[in-house]
Amino acid sequence: MRISPLFEIKHKDKNSKARVGILYTKKGSIETPFFMPVATKASVKHISSKDLESIGVNAIISNTFVLHAKPGEKLIKKMNGLGNFMNFKGINVTDSGGFQMYSDRCYIGSTEEEVIFRNPFTGEKMCISPERDMQIQLDLDSDIAMCLDSMPLLHHTKDEIAEAVRKTSLWAERCRIYHNNAQKRIPLKKRQLLFGIMQGGIYEDLREKSAREIVKIGFDGYAMGGLALGESKEEEYRAIIAQKKIVPEDSPVYLMGAGHPVEVLEAISLGVDMFDSRFPTQNARRGTLFTSQGRIKIFNNKYERDSKPIDPECDCFVCKNYTRAYIRYQLAQEEGVGFRLSSYHNIYYMTRLMEQTRAAIKNKTFLKFKKRVARIYEKSDQDSKNNFKKFNISRKKKL
Amino acid sequence: MRISPLFEIKHKDKNSKARVGILYTKKGSIETPFFMPVATKASVKHISSKDLESIGVNAIISNTFVLHAKPGEKLIKKMNGLGNFMNFKGINVTDSGGFQMYSDRCYIGSTEEEVIFRNPFTGEKMCISPERDMQIQLDLDSDIAMCLDSMPLLHHTKDEIAEAVRKTSLWAERCRIYHNNAQKRIPLKKRQLLFGIMQGGIYEDLREKSAREIVKIGFDGYAMGGLALGESKEEEYRAIIAQKKIVPEDSPVYLMGAGHPVEVLEAISLGVDMFDSRFPTQNARRGTLFTSQGRIKIFNNKYERDSKPIDPECDCFVCKNYTRAYIRYQLAQEEGVGFRLSSYHNIYYMTRLMEQTRAAIKNKTFLKFKKRVARIYEKSDQDSKNNFKKFNISRKKKL
Repeated sequence: MRISPLFEIKHKDKNSKARVGILYTKKGSIETPFFMPVATKASVKHISSKDLESIGVNAIISNTFVLHAKPGEKLIKKMNGLGNFMNFKGINVTDSGGFQMYSDRCYIGSTEEEVIFRNPFTGEKMCISPERDMQIQLDLDSDIAMCLDSMPLLHHTKDEIAEAVRKTSLWAERCRIYHNNAQKRIPLKKRQLLFGIMQGGIYEDLREKSAREIVKIGFDGYAMGGLALGESKEEEYRAIIAQKKIVPEDSPVYLMGAGHPVEVLEAISLGVDMFDSRFPTQNARRGTLFTSQGRIKIFNNKYERDSKPIDPECDCFVCKNYTRAYIRYQLAQEEGVGFRLSSYHNIYYMTRLMEQTRAAIKNKTFLKFKKRVARIYEKSDQDSKNNFKKFNISRKKKL
Repeated sequence: MRISPLFEIKHKDKNSKARVGILYTKKGSIETPFFMPVATKASVKHISSKDLESIGVNAIISNTFVLHAKPGEKLIKKMNGLGNFMNFKGINVTDSGGFQMYSDRCYIGSTEEEVIFRNPFTGEKMCISPERDMQIQLDLDSDIAMCLDSMPLLHHTKDEIAEAVRKTSLWAERCRIYHNNAQKRIPLKKRQLLFGIMQGGIYEDLREKSAREIVKIGFDGYAMGGLALGESKEEEYRAIIAQKKIVPEDSPVYLMGAGHPVEVLEAISLGVDMFDSRFPTQNARRGTLFTSQGRIKIFNNKYERDSKPIDPECDCFVCKNYTRAYIRYQLAQEEGVGFRLSSYHNIYYMTRLMEQTRAAIKNKTFLKFKKRVARIYEKSDQDSKNNFKKFNISRKKKL
């Protein structure tokens, strides 16, 4: 059921599992590894699709469940699909929405058949089955769809996570069957891709079991779910290694929810090809900005009268036109301009970081590059007396 | 004390008092009549100074009192003035902030000497005298400063308004003296301009009295304050006529706070040269959009699946790239992208309307042009069953 070729590996790093590849979708191809900003409600917060184009973002991820609740997939289908609706020329990925359904705010329960939860907009009870989730994503007409998984949280017991792994495999199979049938008559090159999601928490044996079951069903790509949720970096990396060794070498691998520059580079060295996270945009809105010198917390008093750009070495339109003092003031006042300028810069930073990563893999300097970035972040985090490993997100102070 | 020439009238309409002129400031010249978007906290809400440049906005107005409270004029002075702080290449006007100090939320009282009010950020008691207000505006280094006036509200009695007129004149004189002394040693062409503000509520005799007193003191331009506050259009226009006939023909006239397209065109026909208002941006955020066919309320159900741009005749980047359905959804979700796209369009609309107005005055077709615009708005307002005269701002509905 594969588009052929679906994924081509072009360069392999000799000293790690890092690789540069090309992923082909119905909307066009994209070089891996890449990072996707999050566009939950068909927009990246404060960043228009024209901004994304000017930054050079080639893929974003939206949320099936949120778009189903409002404005509804029928409306988006009528507007010729998600890409046309938001006028984004790159690749649209949709997450199944499992993450939201399983949140404390929404989750009611889940049967063998489907997830039962509350519509966060209306409070109304809703049920979504794997088949229904597939149909919604087909209607949204995204370029890559994700299976509906059963998503355990970090605090769940090993037994609960094992049960989630079981249900995830069961539902993955139903997703695969429905999705195949629905696209039977569509030419291969025009088909939406479908990625399986692997679970297993921090338990390597469950991670392996889940990977084996999902790979056995067979998907266009494989995502690692239920990570980047607060487990330690060591636990996260061990889980990645456990599943990566089971996924076929020529399949794209996607680590869901990871967005810290160092975490992303580590995962790339373990063979991951795709990332998404609200980390860069959420941090931006809270005043944490990524630079060539590591991260800076703009609400620190030393930036109050700083007439330098966020990053003197960055050539984005924000750094060419605005000072730290101005962005700090706009953010402190919660002005839309502050949110936009800081978000633009952080997405630009991540997009350039991925470009540099691909170049480093091609130039055989990847591990050196990764080490340099890690050292810079460690230093900037020590400087601001934060514990890097905890991934603290700075709280916005009212100035 | 005038920069020479300060204001040159280039074209006069034969059938009304409309005129096209050039106003010279230390930052450069600008063609009148023009409309200023409101940038209270050194940014137009959701619109960066680069956006303003791309729209062709040549002047904006910020708020002295708000900028004094945060980030403080000393910081902005250190950043080389307001224009450099926000990187706006056009003309920066600062309002004295009287309007905010006199708001119910802030106002405590006012003596012969100064206004006493609460800092809206800290709750702390503050006093601002005319002299202090001038010094803050000089520190902000705006291109046009406004006198501190005593601002009556619509519900005040005629006696209270007469007292406000008296105090406004007294303070205008103190502003004039302080401002002159402070700039004595600065070459004429590098001086900040100072505009007087005329009050008088809806009473023509008080309007005339205030105009005579303010004109007698002598300013670089004359502003009409305390209008566009909810009085009827007839009352507003009568007040304008009463003061316009007293202001010297060769002085720029500024109607503060007016921003409805038809109201602006009417005021231009009465001889007004400058406008500012949050009307276009506030309406945009609430889903009321200005078009060549009048205003549309995007939350109307008929736009839910409308794949047309906001205005098919508009060539702004929003209309070239986004549909009504998309902007409606983004606004309904209170997404920053919705606020930005709708605000961008409405400011673009007002900027083009002013361009067309100047062209119509030059081409001797102004009254025809004004009539056509008024007819379009009357029709669109009837269509949406709203009473135009009440200037209802549509309330955002959660969709």
